[in-house]
Amino acid sequence: MNGANVSCFAFKFIRLHKRELCRARIAGQLCRTHSQHDSLSPGHLLLSSRYMSHRIHRGYSSKSLVKDCRGLLYRNHGDPSHVVKLESIELPPVGADRVLVKMLAAPINPADINMIQGTYAILPDLPTVGGNEGVGQVAEVGSQVTRLKVGDWVIPRDAGLGTWRTATVLREEDLISLPSDIPLLSAATLSVNPCTAIRMLSDFEDLKPGDSVIQNAANSGVGQAVIQIAAARGVHTINVVRDRPDLQQLTDRLKAMGATHVIKEETLRRPEMKELFKTCPRPRLALNGVGGKSATELLRHLQTGGTMVTYGGMAKQPVTVPVSALIFKDVKVRGFWVTQWKKDHSQDEVAARGMLDELCTLIRAGKLSPPACTEHSLQDFKKALDAAMQPYTSAKQVLIM
Amino acid sequence: MNGANVSCFAFKFIRLHKRELCRARIAGQLCRTHSQHDSLSPGHLLLSSRYMSHRIHRGYSSKSLVKDCRGLLYRNHGDPSHVVKLESIELPPVGADRVLVKMLAAPINPADINMIQGTYAILPDLPTVGGNEGVGQVAEVGSQVTRLKVGDWVIPRDAGLGTWRTATVLREEDLISLPSDIPLLSAATLSVNPCTAIRMLSDFEDLKPGDSVIQNAANSGVGQAVIQIAAARGVHTINVVRDRPDLQQLTDRLKAMGATHVIKEETLRRPEMKELFKTCPRPRLALNGVGGKSATELLRHLQTGGTMVTYGGMAKQPVTVPVSALIFKDVKVRGFWVTQWKKDHSQDEVAARGMLDELCTLIRAGKLSPPACTEHSLQDFKKALDAAMQPYTSAKQVLIM
Repeated sequence: MNGANVSCFAFKFIRLHKRELCRARIAGQLCRTHSQHDSLSPGHLLLSSRYMSHRIHRGYSSKSLVKDCRGLLYRNHGDPSHVVKLESIELPPVGADRVLVKMLAAPINPADINMIQGTYAILPDLPTVGGNEGVGQVAEVGSQVTRLKVGDWVIPRDAGLGTWRTATVLREEDLISLPSDIPLLSAATLSVNPCTAIRMLSDFEDLKPGDSVIQNAANSGVGQAVIQIAAARGVHTINVVRDRPDLQQLTDRLKAMGATHVIKEETLRRPEMKELFKTCPRPRLALNGVGGKSATELLRHLQTGGTMVTYGGMAKQPVTVPVSALIFKDVKVRGFWVTQWKKDHSQDEVAARGMLDELCTLIRAGKLSPPACTEHSLQDFKKALDAAMQPYTSAKQVLIM
Repeated sequence: MNGANVSCFAFKFIRLHKRELCRARIAGQLCRTHSQHDSLSPGHLLLSSRYMSHRIHRGYSSKSLVKDCRGLLYRNHGDPSHVVKLESIELPPVGADRVLVKMLAAPINPADINMIQGTYAILPDLPTVGGNEGVGQVAEVGSQVTRLKVGDWVIPRDAGLGTWRTATVLREEDLISLPSDIPLLSAATLSVNPCTAIRMLSDFEDLKPGDSVIQNAANSGVGQAVIQIAAARGVHTINVVRDRPDLQQLTDRLKAMGATHVIKEETLRRPEMKELFKTCPRPRLALNGVGGKSATELLRHLQTGGTMVTYGGMAKQPVTVPVSALIFKDVKVRGFWVTQWKKDHSQDEVAARGMLDELCTLIRAGKLSPPACTEHSLQDFKKALDAAMQPYTSAKQVLIM
């Protein structure tokens, strides 16, 4: 990671980008906090991101960009709103096998927060730039770069590259190109949650149309992607959410995405589950982003021989599995970490490209929208970090560079 | 199950059988309570069982056998020593596709006890005859029976056939023949514990010589079979046992079987585990017959990507899996139930036969001995049941018919 070299970087492009966002907002196409399901269609975002892409091609100068590179650094682990600072960053020269990337947008994911807190499984050396996901655009390529060209949209191949910054210089092999005809927010949030969702729906059970999947944390980024990808494949989803004041509104929103059933945690223990299973087969797959009791309840409803995949532990409690479920119901308890999948497939261009193509096809067809997002400028990062750490948040915080 | 028809049955054959056992005992070859590791070699047992087999061929009359068939019935669930009764049983006629089997020996397994208590996953209709495992000898075959012949040793293909009885009439397809050149106690205890052990060592991780396996309940029937089969394959075993007064003796006994390491539960949490892993790779496979904390400790020592297979829950506590182990260490938590394996492979003669052949080869080579056994006559069943329910027992209770 090269995030600790402090310097400056031309802000011309960022201003351009913001001007477009501002224009879109004025035209009612983009609001500061929005959900793709009620205030914005993918088409609106497409319009703005395409326009931006056009301007980027013609308007930037990589030398001037470097003058004002800024990023969100942290030098110690701790409370994100205390330890993260917006600083100038000096970029290294664009070597022969390197690419200068102007970052466009980068979300704040739970793993980013845990990394800053020092509680995540992988921790980069400090100081470092926060963020593991995001989309950028190639602004300059080294002489030996063959696969990427100026103007391409790119996402990090792996975690740990520090995406909360205006620009970065990376090896070509650290980047994967992405078609630029998908909405900016879809591109910025594509490589963690939708990839997690599609892998979990593909790699553990051979799901056929008509099968069903049960998941908790159904309103999370992963949860929303699961609902949409499963629906596109004709797979039912039983979606468990925590009770909350706006439950009906949330239920309606998830059903509009394709959720078959939306139920409260408490319902999992109630006889009405039997009614539910009259219209929908017992799930072959359970997806667990919570842990604790919630996970045990999901297990109870699995088909014999089914699999529960854990990808998160919001409840900060372990997964408790009755011995009888393992022995007599042959349930399989597994875990999934998209970062590891990417590492394991780093040499498998076909697998990564195939997955992204499939997701982009769904996005273009209007079958996979990004989660509801709240956009923030880089300067507003404290507000963004605070919002990302609130419980029951229905919006993903995204930094727009 | 046909165990509830009460009548009488010729005892001639049983008496013959007992006379042989008695003769062997007088010759010092067989003692009432013995361990194959200190008081009896498989060769001794082989001698007595071969001799018995010879006498059975020439001495029985199936008609007279039927006169005095007796079995251990229970009519209600409850405390085994209260609800189990020795009763006469009327056998049905030997139909065209049926076989009359004289039972020779049948062990008391934990699952049998749980079935009587009514706490097991599968419960037969009551009244029923206890016991799910054992070896018998074919005494008469129906006219359409093609695979079995009089004199063959047979074991039940599946659980639930009620083996605690002197004789039974079963369909040919419910039985698998076994070579009669292995010791009687090996044959009587082959179809549950050694089958569980060999499947768990074969079906979950691709273990190579030099790899290692960690297991708790290492002194159980399954545990002892795991030690021996793994040793025969060049696979290290790290064997966890509960602390006890005769720990050194137990350690010596398990090491004589081929155990690489024998450690106490407490040691799993101590720094000396690091020392152990200097001489032996971290395990790819953990076998859990206990549950609760013991299982969680096994998980901690697994290699990244390794599998824990649960086959029992002696601690009567669930398996608790840290979310981080699932996500970041990709541990796989599975279960195994040999009864289900047998059901799933009931039409796969090759799989079942291949497994039994492999086990019998190990037995003949002196590489797989039955667990330490205490023999009881059918009349002494109360003593046998009581002994089977004692904690820390190192001997399997076997009924000799």
